Amino acid sequence: MEKSPLAPAAFPVLPAIDGVSLHVARARYKEWDRCDLTYVCLTEGTSVAGVFTRNICCSTEVEIGRENVKLGKARALVVNAGNSNAFTGYRGREAVELIQNQVAAHLGCATTDIFVSSTGVIGVPLPLDKARDGVNAILSSAPCGWEDAALTIGTTDTFPKGATTSAMIGDKKVLLSGIIKGSGMIAPDMATMLGYIFTDAAIEPALLQDMLSAASAKSYNCITVDGDTSTSDTVLAFATGKAGNAPLSTMDSPGADAFQAALTDICTQLAHLVVRDGEGAQKFIEVEVTGAVSDESARRIGLSIANSPLVKTAIAGEDANWGRVVMAVGKAGEPADRDKLAIRFADKWVAQAGLAADSYDEAPVAEHLKGTDISIGVDIGLGNGRATVWTCDLTHGYISINADYRS
Amino acid sequence: MEKSPLAPAAFPVLPAIDGVSLHVARARYKEWDRCDLTYVCLTEGTSVAGVFTRNICCSTEVEIGRENVKLGKARALVVNAGNSNAFTGYRGREAVELIQNQVAAHLGCATTDIFVSSTGVIGVPLPLDKARDGVNAILSSAPCGWEDAALTIGTTDTFPKGATTSAMIGDKKVLLSGIIKGSGMIAPDMATMLGYIFTDAAIEPALLQDMLSAASAKSYNCITVDGDTSTSDTVLAFATGKAGNAPLSTMDSPGADAFQAALTDICTQLAHLVVRDGEGAQKFIEVEVTGAVSDESARRIGLSIANSPLVKTAIAGEDANWGRVVMAVGKAGEPADRDKLAIRFADKWVAQAGLAADSYDEAPVAEHLKGTDISIGVDIGLGNGRATVWTCDLTHGYISINADYRS
Repeated sequence: MEKSPLAPAAFPVLPAIDGVSLHVARARYKEWDRCDLTYVCLTEGTSVAGVFTRNICCSTEVEIGRENVKLGKARALVVNAGNSNAFTGYRGREAVELIQNQVAAHLGCATTDIFVSSTGVIGVPLPLDKARDGVNAILSSAPCGWEDAALTIGTTDTFPKGATTSAMIGDKKVLLSGIIKGSGMIAPDMATMLGYIFTDAAIEPALLQDMLSAASAKSYNCITVDGDTSTSDTVLAFATGKAGNAPLSTMDSPGADAFQAALTDICTQLAHLVVRDGEGAQKFIEVEVTGAVSDESARRIGLSIANSPLVKTAIAGEDANWGRVVMAVGKAGEPADRDKLAIRFADKWVAQAGLAADSYDEAPVAEHLKGTDISIGVDIGLGNGRATVWTCDLTHGYISINADYRS
Repeated sequence: MEKSPLAPAAFPVLPAIDGVSLHVARARYKEWDRCDLTYVCLTEGTSVAGVFTRNICCSTEVEIGRENVKLGKARALVVNAGNSNAFTGYRGREAVELIQNQVAAHLGCATTDIFVSSTGVIGVPLPLDKARDGVNAILSSAPCGWEDAALTIGTTDTFPKGATTSAMIGDKKVLLSGIIKGSGMIAPDMATMLGYIFTDAAIEPALLQDMLSAASAKSYNCITVDGDTSTSDTVLAFATGKAGNAPLSTMDSPGADAFQAALTDICTQLAHLVVRDGEGAQKFIEVEVTGAVSDESARRIGLSIANSPLVKTAIAGEDANWGRVVMAVGKAGEPADRDKLAIRFADKWVAQAGLAADSYDEAPVAEHLKGTDISIGVDIGLGNGRATVWTCDLTHGYISINADYRS
């Protein structure tokens, strides 16, 4: 698969996180010649938080992960690529428990400290023998770098995805490094979103969970490729505490605001990378909704626009078809008043007060639409609610990837 | 545009409806050489009922029509093709009122008896001079047949769409003939759904409204092409009363059940024709959901499957990718239990009780998927709720029509 035209020029330089060691190996879950098993060893005392798919038909990995993050402690992460192990009943559960037991025995910890994710084809139980051999090999392997880990958790991704940021907690600088995979919400091979953020900050698990949930609401929950959600989507945050900062325990702890901002920043960076690798994407689209009755209402209107096949194909065709944006606002099921609606592309208002704008000059808008980064703005004119969501265009490439493939 | 491969072999023979005369003319709303103005004259005493788009940003035609159906009387229908007159503020309203006044003056009736629909590009007010001249010409024109009317209300449609049925009310046979247009929920030119059903039955407007609403719930509200809804979608039913049956006034009136069944039948026929002309459609897909907690829950799950780009591209690719069906059930937000789910293609169960079915033989399923009429069944395993919805596959054709076009 060719690299997305929206990919960054290079994988960024991510600092190592004290207390985190990365490993990759070949479990050969598919007939491929690449690493497909990732193991991350975490120092004792690491806090964990997680957000998971709301898809009711979720995988065993998600069910177990959702339970175990409540305990707040992690010692290892294992990611299988090439097989999602979803919709495999008791046989899928056996595979997850096998991996947990193997790693827990090696580390001498509880099985609940071991987090497992799987991504790939649905409905085929993860082969026990391949998982066992792969894990055996990886437990004694040498550490690798971030880019190798980012490549190994990928499936239909066309480029490895990583991001970093930092925050000051008191006089201590804490680091955050993260990797993510995903290029559709779900796909043949399959493009589940799996994201992992690692920090050396000391932070209580309950607060980390609150912060990750808040960060997700503004990042992962504001992106869409095709409106389809995976049965395996998972984001986990691990905090090793090795930075030596005064541990954060509530939002009133000094430095908590700064850490929240950094966490939201890295989550937003990672979420954008997923959109930039959207299946068939040729354009990155930002939709800003203002003037809604609430922030949540603005987000829903934004996602209605971002999920509309007609809006997404119009952008693919470099067509300032604001009628389709009107339609998508109207179908969102949220308060709106046709005659107060205003729509812009970049900073040019094309419609205002329920009519085409008198000032509308097509030339600069057409120029903007020829670029790769498209900005659509909608003002609802009713309140102060606002949200920004991100998506990509819908192209022949999406159809080719998803229809011209046999599972 | 080439005729859809899913089109019927020919336009059906539709009987004339006593009290209904059809007319077409050229208003030249666009630069095209075809009739684009339709006028239907209805006898005095005609009852009317209507269902309209729930899109908040609806057109003036929808706003006015929604008010006027409450009065229950109709004398004429005027349909403009090539310009939807939507999102045109007060200038759009002027055009609708002009047409209503012109026709009402000609017929000597109230303006509220005149129903107007428009379909085509959004955001451009319907040109007053073209509307006036077109209506002047059509009021004195000779009547035409159903196929001409069906062609004239069309826009991006690749074939004219009509259906007929009948019912016995006591010893009187009443006839129903209907036409419809639409090929996406909204589209460049634009593929709003406009449907009109004419019957010679005598029926009170309030009952006709109840029956049309019930029929719509099982037909128009169970189809989807791309999940996008037009700002102009309208279905009107007109009953001239010329059949001479004892007028139906409640569901207890003798023959009411038979008429309801006939109305649901013709609405379902018409709705299927819209799906068969879905933009880029190569396959007609029926999704039957059983075992849901309620009929409404079953319908929502069915639409979640029918709207999923990943399910629709899988069918386009003739791929029995039932994992995508699992995903679409899980994201519907309705009660479901992964481990009770069963999925079939045609009559072959591919998954049962949360696992791939042991009996699954791919060959007959692959054969079924090569055809043009695809059947997917999902049993939720929780209750007795059931629903059937219809959609088409998502192909390169959809992208070509919607992206490779400039508005």
